Amino acid sequence: MSEPRRGRVRSETARRAILEATRDQLAEHGYDKLSMDRVAAAAGVGKQTVYRWWPSKSAVVAECVLAGYVLADMRVVADTGDLRSDVRAWLMAFVDFVDRDPAAGGLVRALASAAAESDAVATHLYDRFTATAESHLAARLADAERRGQLRDGIPAVMVAEMLFGTVLYRFLVRQDITPEFVDRLCDAIFNGIAAPR
Amino acid sequence: MSEPRRGRVRSETARRAILEATRDQLAEHGYDKLSMDRVAAAAGVGKQTVYRWWPSKSAVVAECVLAGYVLADMRVVADTGDLRSDVRAWLMAFVDFVDRDPAAGGLVRALASAAAESDAVATHLYDRFTATAESHLAARLADAERRGQLRDGIPAVMVAEMLFGTVLYRFLVRQDITPEFVDRLCDAIFNGIAAPR
Repeated sequence: MSEPRRGRVRSETARRAILEATRDQLAEHGYDKLSMDRVAAAAGVGKQTVYRWWPSKSAVVAECVLAGYVLADMRVVADTGDLRSDVRAWLMAFVDFVDRDPAAGGLVRALASAAAESDAVATHLYDRFTATAESHLAARLADAERRGQLRDGIPAVMVAEMLFGTVLYRFLVRQDITPEFVDRLCDAIFNGIAAPR
Repeated sequence: MSEPRRGRVRSETARRAILEATRDQLAEHGYDKLSMDRVAAAAGVGKQTVYRWWPSKSAVVAECVLAGYVLADMRVVADTGDLRSDVRAWLMAFVDFVDRDPAAGGLVRALASAAAESDAVATHLYDRFTATAESHLAARLADAERRGQLRDGIPAVMVAEMLFGTVLYRFLVRQDITPEFVDRLCDAIFNGIAAPR
């Protein structure tokens, strides 16, 4: 009985070591220069152990983000009672993070690439982002709806998709996400683009 | 003098043959089963000729989309005089296309992946999409602005990014783009999500 359990413990330890090594290597070298060889060496495992769980560099980085080893603080949406300024602050924290960390763009692009190429990663990504949206952004949106700050019939998950999607697209096409961009995006999303009738 | 010119003609002919072969192979096998070997064979060139111009499968597919060999009709935005119904019709044409062609999801994901992994493809993608936005969507938006259908200070390119980004994100996370989704998205983008004050 104890063999499988010990095997499982060893697996979980190795898995965590790999994710921690990936986080450290990302911080030191950035995404483009990240190497699976160095990740395996730093984690003290064979390269085939890394490939057993993740088929590619982008897949292990995606897991690293999704498991909260990097970008973790982006999951929290503040609650000041004013939805618009909370969403703005959340996007601005993202701008700050990207300004501080030159590897951030590569991280976000790795996520997109991994999701594009693997159904399993995409499902995982969606579950995590949906979970994030459920627990933070959607909860915040539902609260705003109760306070009468959100129009009727606007699904919270769609607002999350509009925000994630627009920001992700800016990353993909290498356009800066500036405070001015955040202001314009918040204005368009909250007030709409149509002229008042 | 004639040698370089003949060389250039040969190059352009081979390039076009590769893109046409990619389009045909995509239609026959879909993106996931697309093989660079088969593309090269169908184009009548060596595999190294394909790799000389495109480093990966996703790169040649991205070029194929960008050069208008597939998805070309998505560039046209109708002009009925009513911006909201034109944008809705444009998104609905996309829904129809995806419903008709089971390879469409793979194509869009290939674009995203190629852009995520290569600065050159990303720049090309942005130039083409910006060009599309400039020539169709942005022109249509500018016209709507003149007719007083668009709120002041809404940059057309940002509207294009919100639309492209949200739709791309739905593809990445493998969520269906349904007529209901299109209606909700148009409503949110045109009317905004904030409750009227």
